[in-house]
Amino acid sequence: MLEVYDDAYFMRQALAQARLAASMGEIPVGAVVVSHNRIIARGHNETERLNDVTAHAEIIALTAAANHLGDKYLLDCTLYVTLEPCPMCAGALAWAQTARIVYGASDDKRGFMRFGRELLHPKTKLEFGILHDECAELMTGFFQNRR
Amino acid sequence: MLEVYDDAYFMRQALAQARLAASMGEIPVGAVVVSHNRIIARGHNETERLNDVTAHAEIIALTAAANHLGDKYLLDCTLYVTLEPCPMCAGALAWAQTARIVYGASDDKRGFMRFGRELLHPKTKLEFGILHDECAELMTGFFQNRR
Repeated sequence: MLEVYDDAYFMRQALAQARLAASMGEIPVGAVVVSHNRIIARGHNETERLNDVTAHAEIIALTAAANHLGDKYLLDCTLYVTLEPCPMCAGALAWAQTARIVYGASDDKRGFMRFGRELLHPKTKLEFGILHDECAELMTGFFQNRR
Repeated sequence: MLEVYDDAYFMRQALAQARLAASMGEIPVGAVVVSHNRIIARGHNETERLNDVTAHAEIIALTAAANHLGDKYLLDCTLYVTLEPCPMCAGALAWAQTARIVYGASDDKRGFMRFGRELLHPKTKLEFGILHDECAELMTGFFQNRR
């Protein structure tokens, strides 16, 4: 089977991270960082395990990517994340001057878009809605099971 | 000499952290977390040394405080920081449900207040301007020396 490295492909990798989080009892959000069509970092939510509110998928993936690159700026990188980043993560991605952000499901209550794109770096390209339904269902399913 | 544990006292401790950052070539921002009049965590900016855009004074202090408490919520804590937090840090302090935030100097360009107090947790109390001039001068002096 021929695999095409498009946004859906990388979002599926982020979804795999999100499922890993769910299997550990963490809120199922996953992220990957891609540079020149190659995944250089992965992360999933670990706030419970690490007892750390900052241990969101994006922060973990961003820090891992910086370690991999030896550079704290993600100038050539795309971050894929299954859920709309929160303002904390949007702010971190702004500091990293992330070239492109692609997210799956929206988060009307806790997402950064309430505050507008000004939370991101002016040069960052933004796309969303990639595999929206799969990303959203993972969240809905997780919280339904917890009730 | 009688030492009074007031906001100025704890801001001086944050200032000491900021000076430590400056001595390491880091942007001079420092923070302490206080619980029941006791400093339970300290942090200063370490973005250069750690090669990590998220290594702001507030994030380091917040994570250290969570480790100390064994709880990721800072429900009884005040975070003192020499500079107005950026949106990333404001978002992190919101997730931690920090009871109170006190900052020294304003940061009109990169501070969270451009986006409004809605970036913080609704229960968080906010104060600023404590030792404003000392906090601001540390920043101005640092950037003047770098030119």
